[in-house]
Amino acid sequence: MTKRSTRLEDIAALAGVSIATASRALNDSPAVNTRTKQKIWKLAREHDYPFRRHMPAAPIGASGTIALVTPRPQGREGRLSDPFFLELLAGVGEAARERGCDLVMSHVSPANLHDLSIAMTTSRADGVIFLGQSTLHAAFNRIAETEGRFVVWGAELPDQNYCSIGSDNVNGGRRATAHLARLGRKRIVYLGDLEPPEALQRQRGYQDALETAGLTLDPDLIVPAHFEVESAEAAVDSMLRRGLDFDGIVAASDLIALGAVRALLHAGKSVPGDVSVIGFDNVPFSRYSRPALSTIAQDTMKAGRLMISKLLDHAGEGGGRSERIPTDLIVRETCGG
Amino acid sequence: MTKRSTRLEDIAALAGVSIATASRALNDSPAVNTRTKQKIWKLAREHDYPFRRHMPAAPIGASGTIALVTPRPQGREGRLSDPFFLELLAGVGEAARERGCDLVMSHVSPANLHDLSIAMTTSRADGVIFLGQSTLHAAFNRIAETEGRFVVWGAELPDQNYCSIGSDNVNGGRRATAHLARLGRKRIVYLGDLEPPEALQRQRGYQDALETAGLTLDPDLIVPAHFEVESAEAAVDSMLRRGLDFDGIVAASDLIALGAVRALLHAGKSVPGDVSVIGFDNVPFSRYSRPALSTIAQDTMKAGRLMISKLLDHAGEGGGRSERIPTDLIVRETCGG
Repeated sequence: MTKRSTRLEDIAALAGVSIATASRALNDSPAVNTRTKQKIWKLAREHDYPFRRHMPAAPIGASGTIALVTPRPQGREGRLSDPFFLELLAGVGEAARERGCDLVMSHVSPANLHDLSIAMTTSRADGVIFLGQSTLHAAFNRIAETEGRFVVWGAELPDQNYCSIGSDNVNGGRRATAHLARLGRKRIVYLGDLEPPEALQRQRGYQDALETAGLTLDPDLIVPAHFEVESAEAAVDSMLRRGLDFDGIVAASDLIALGAVRALLHAGKSVPGDVSVIGFDNVPFSRYSRPALSTIAQDTMKAGRLMISKLLDHAGEGGGRSERIPTDLIVRETCGG
Repeated sequence: MTKRSTRLEDIAALAGVSIATASRALNDSPAVNTRTKQKIWKLAREHDYPFRRHMPAAPIGASGTIALVTPRPQGREGRLSDPFFLELLAGVGEAARERGCDLVMSHVSPANLHDLSIAMTTSRADGVIFLGQSTLHAAFNRIAETEGRFVVWGAELPDQNYCSIGSDNVNGGRRATAHLARLGRKRIVYLGDLEPPEALQRQRGYQDALETAGLTLDPDLIVPAHFEVESAEAAVDSMLRRGLDFDGIVAASDLIALGAVRALLHAGKSVPGDVSVIGFDNVPFSRYSRPALSTIAQDTMKAGRLMISKLLDHAGEGGGRSERIPTDLIVRETCGG
């Protein structure tokens, strides 16, 4: 004799409420008090009564809920284990805790306008944080006209009608490059991805600083590398093999700087003796790597607080004005500064 | 003349549906189709109609939803930026993506049975992952009898009636210690927190390995240190100042090992020349620190997949059987192996 499946009547009877109340409770109707709802949800779970499973934990007592969505960097799958991404995630997480706010990490990893639009329309949170701008600037502009509140971690760009929070990348690139110039470096390489807006801004800062320092900009010294140790290691290997003349490297990230240092040491070069290297991000290992990595620090804790506050505190579409967070120059061993 | 606030009738009219349908849609009733719901939620947002704000993004199209709750380590506030915690978070995040499952990071940071119980009863997710066991074993046993599905990242303990996923900590501690013994180290220190179950299991492995290697267990060589670089640095400083005789350190984490290495180098000792050091976790910087850190690797990607699958695939309270994940011995420079 097979166990017959539980019906709504059974749940109602077990809870000692009317069928209507049981139904309202399972639909989380505001008409039913929280204690009763919890009792009925618990019974439904225990008796495998199929009420909506696909609803996130109701953050009862939470001051708000923010959805986190991570766009795919140019088509490639975003690696959640990227050290800077995790620092940023920790920053948002700490800020959400401070505010008693729950975070929903969406499984969606948008690569285009359609995806972004779905991420927004299916969101019933107080707002959405897009942890990355990728190359979706135009798409963000489009959804800013139609959908709910969101904020984007990334660069502030011309003709932008959505709210972005990001580091002052131009100034960061400028400070990194100016520091190497002050140390007397003359042939300074910019090593980094050439597509994402933040990397391009860092590169612009690099060019500004060369100009200010009276150094000529040599296109051969702008070398592409993805945001990965291996990619940077390979790029610097080939720079050395083809005998490129350089005495400094401004890397678009700490992972890239780390790969560069490894390739240089492996080739018997001394860092900073032969080549000064500076990274960007100040991820944890930059302090602990040997030689310790000089870098431009991004303030991920402040970034987290700003993004949460834009969505919780500022009314209106887009959630307030874009902001650029100042960076810090952190001088460690790879510069010989 | 002030703008009168939007009423349910207005939303219904704008959406071209009955008031009843609008109401059901705002309560996310299964009786209303998704497209209509989205349209009505969007209108409600646009006209600031106060429907339940505190509900996380409805993961429409998600295959499930898991709540993430991070217990407070013995009273102290858990630091989300702990590098191993972030690796574990990335593991869970990648696994959730693979399964098309959304994650809800709760703002609650439970420190006792009451908190855990609230975290569970307010959860309407398919299940809850507690990212840390802290000293809440008894409390987890209690809620396993009453509440919904959950799984705990931590050690499998005697008389446990809930599902835990964790590394094989005893064997990990054993392998780390046996490796130093094989290198001829005779006075091996265990450096780590003495309270959390996982640390105690690693310490038991340390003691087993000493016995197997025929080394006497000297209580002076078991030195407490919290899971922080500074705490370990201070502990090793004082070991050196009071002239403790030791030639190896088995650290309960990579952060602790890193602090130990820094203190040793700072005191003019050579690593591994004078003292061999091995960590636990294999966090990213362990590979990049100089000397590169030997360590016991925990498989955070497998951990993430297992915890998600316990909750999505296994019915029943507790969500299936506990499992211990094998560790890897990673030999780098700090051991001289």
